Amino acid sequence: MATFAGLRALAAKGPGWLPRSPWALLPAGFCSGGPGASGRRESESHLTSTRQQDGIRRIVLSNPKKRNALSLAMLKSLQNDILHEAESKDLKVIIISAEGPVFSSGHDLKELTEEQGRDYHTEIFQTCSKVMMLIRNHPVPIIAMVNGLATAAGCQLVASCDIAVASDKSSFATPGVNVGLFCSTPGVALGRAVPRKVALEMLFTGEPISAQEAMLHGLLTKVVPEEQLEEETMKIAKKIASVSRPVVSLGKATFYKQLSQDLRTAYSLTSKVMVDNLAMQEGQEGIKAFMQKRKPTWSH
Amino acid sequence: MATFAGLRALAAKGPGWLPRSPWALLPAGFCSGGPGASGRRESESHLTSTRQQDGIRRIVLSNPKKRNALSLAMLKSLQNDILHEAESKDLKVIIISAEGPVFSSGHDLKELTEEQGRDYHTEIFQTCSKVMMLIRNHPVPIIAMVNGLATAAGCQLVASCDIAVASDKSSFATPGVNVGLFCSTPGVALGRAVPRKVALEMLFTGEPISAQEAMLHGLLTKVVPEEQLEEETMKIAKKIASVSRPVVSLGKATFYKQLSQDLRTAYSLTSKVMVDNLAMQEGQEGIKAFMQKRKPTWSH
Amino acid sequence: MATFAGLRALAAKGPGWLPRSPWALLPAGFCSGGPGASGRRESESHLTSTRQQDGIRRIVLSNPKKRNALSLAMLKSLQNDILHEAESKDLKVIIISAEGPVFSSGHDLKELTEEQGRDYHTEIFQTCSKVMMLIRNHPVPIIAMVNGLATAAGCQLVASCDIAVASDKSSFATPGVNVGLFCSTPGVALGRAVPRKVALEMLFTGEPISAQEAMLHGLLTKVVPEEQLEEETMKIAKKIASVSRPVVSLGKATFYKQLSQDLRTAYSLTSKVMVDNLAMQEGQEGIKAFMQKRKPTWSH
Repeated sequence: MATFAGLRALAAKGPGWLPRSPWALLPAGFCSGGPGASGRRESESHLTSTRQQDGIRRIVLSNPKKRNALSLAMLKSLQNDILHEAESKDLKVIIISAEGPVFSSGHDLKELTEEQGRDYHTEIFQTCSKVMMLIRNHPVPIIAMVNGLATAAGCQLVASCDIAVASDKSSFATPGVNVGLFCSTPGVALGRAVPRKVALEMLFTGEPISAQEAMLHGLLTKVVPEEQLEEETMKIAKKIASVSRPVVSLGKATFYKQLSQDLRTAYSLTSKVMVDNLAMQEGQEGIKAFMQKRKPTWSH
Repeated sequence: MATFAGLRALAAKGPGWLPRSPWALLPAGFCSGGPGASGRRESESHLTSTRQQDGIRRIVLSNPKKRNALSLAMLKSLQNDILHEAESKDLKVIIISAEGPVFSSGHDLKELTEEQGRDYHTEIFQTCSKVMMLIRNHPVPIIAMVNGLATAAGCQLVASCDIAVASDKSSFATPGVNVGLFCSTPGVALGRAVPRKVALEMLFTGEPISAQEAMLHGLLTKVVPEEQLEEETMKIAKKIASVSRPVVSLGKATFYKQLSQDLRTAYSLTSKVMVDNLAMQEGQEGIKAFMQKRKPTWSH
Repeated sequence: MATFAGLRALAAKGPGWLPRSPWALLPAGFCSGGPGASGRRESESHLTSTRQQDGIRRIVLSNPKKRNALSLAMLKSLQNDILHEAESKDLKVIIISAEGPVFSSGHDLKELTEEQGRDYHTEIFQTCSKVMMLIRNHPVPIIAMVNGLATAAGCQLVASCDIAVASDKSSFATPGVNVGLFCSTPGVALGRAVPRKVALEMLFTGEPISAQEAMLHGLLTKVVPEEQLEEETMKIAKKIASVSRPVVSLGKATFYKQLSQDLRTAYSLTSKVMVDNLAMQEGQEGIKAFMQKRKPTWSH
């Protein structure tokens, strides 16, 4: 929570379509890569695309030819898109979706060969883990909008989002065992999203589950026909964009923090957070508006 | 568990309809309120009603005009009804229900204005948290019987009960974001009852889920048509009232205690509890009755 | 994880039908029993039967006349069957099923009478807990295949397996309250498999849930008609037997280990495990085979 405790409404305003300054929040040299990076990386330039309007940032995995594999370049592009002006009050919610019939097939196996070496492998898994934790620690809700197959780290990405909506033709799998690489990192997110037996059957067999099963078990919050996917997801996003950003940020950070605490500690924390929330400008405006039977005006 | 280890069968017996002695178990001065309390409190006298028969205590939220809001007075009335003769062996199970079409709308927003002040807000959330923890720590099972809308702290109350049954017209929401007050305390109970994505969508959007969805995700154990709600709930309550109270108390306390422990510690604790349970009078009577093919007689 | 870190492919190969050497992995004297054991124990000889073929070990509870009660002798027989050559690379997966209409009725109440004494009771619950933990700590996945009623410790056994498949005529209950013995040890496994309200209603009332409900709530991964039970379970087992044993072992141990860790620690552990997995012979063979568009050859 501390990370975003000082949520400052940054001055940087912009039009609906966000001018990209990709590495704005990243340390210098972020792009320079590890040992032996030259020549084996894809260009990051067109792996993802983003646009932002009315507080809703859309991040689209845009490498359908490679089944939107989460190559190191793709992961960094995604990380950058998520981090970009994260503290701007113009950003209220993020939707991650994908081009093509595969949401994401997970890591790029070409990057996991012996030749690439242990250090490079380490960089890949550490970067991937960072992206997943970034989603949880981000000040705004992040929604996965899935229309197709999500496997391995692609499934992990869905499981890591705060909310996940999918079309009924989507499916989810962690098939690492088929190539001798157990989906242990995807298991972290999956094991926290679905009952453990469901996670274990997926991990041990590599077999996919349907969108319907995924919803029954908590991996998704909604399943809709493909033609309604955009509309249903936007409905959720617009609702979130219409409420107070600092209130949602405080709530998101608090929710994850209290979840692993014992009940007494959790209530001690959240009771204090409720009182603080009431003392915020937004809290008092909301209560006042309710009493005066008018719509609240959020300053964000 | 220690709290109720010395379950004493209190002498105080009474007829089915429990004579209320509202503050019996509460410390002196409990009722005196915080600073500036005078004049702004509702009378507690008719906010809840209780009756008790055959070991089953019914607590009814009885302020339907105010949508059974969990005002400070209502919370204290509820707390008192739950605490009342908690250790009496005549009490086997508690059912919490409500008058009117709204189970409970959560906190009374009039009590959360700036004018009421931080100390008063703090008292409200601390009292609410105490009530929720009291449900878990209570020696007998507490069942929520829901017939209508349960929102915010009202939804928290349902999530905090050990068992929850609802009519199919019921629905559940945590709409605090709409008034700039994120449902962080309800999130404690909700996040421990349903998958986290389900909890987060509810918390971020404020949108309700149906009784059916609530059951699929673990917030309810049963959904029935409205006309069967009473019967189905009483069936569960009567079953619990028919078995041994000290055995159920020991089991409830142990269940919650072991749930957050690592597997080895949990089995070490519960193996010992099983042996202790067998050594109890009730344990031996139960086993003997089973061997002799007769009904056990519980001393409670 | 450390327990099985040094998975050695033991030389001991055998034909499909495993020659039993029941106490091979157990300490001397394991069989000798506690005080007063003589005369009150069933023979362990025919309580379970096992066979093993193509990497799949079938363990069958074979005491249908006594509803496959988990007597101390049955528990020890089961423990032995699970432990037997656990590190052999010929063993890939275990299926636990039962003869007759009852999967298992749980502890043998005749062993829980006052006459048997506290020390004997202690031995029973400790042995039972050991068997349940052994399932989790075992190097290969263990599947419960259920065709009938599973109650008390029988339900605990199902909940403790990594995967559980059942016929639609199966049902599950923790009815200890009926005999004055709360199912506190079954509650450990049940409370980690299903939502807590579902577990508590089962524990407080003793009433059974159907296979369908059990699946909705995560206790089972699949429910099928009785005539497909064998086929569907074998499909899962064969799939697991077809992938790399050391990879699955590493994955299973890692999954359970990370599940209780905070997110940062879990990702730190699993990222390292992924890199180690890639460095294993099996990891590199899998990736190579994928690149060369051929089936991998596992050395196990």
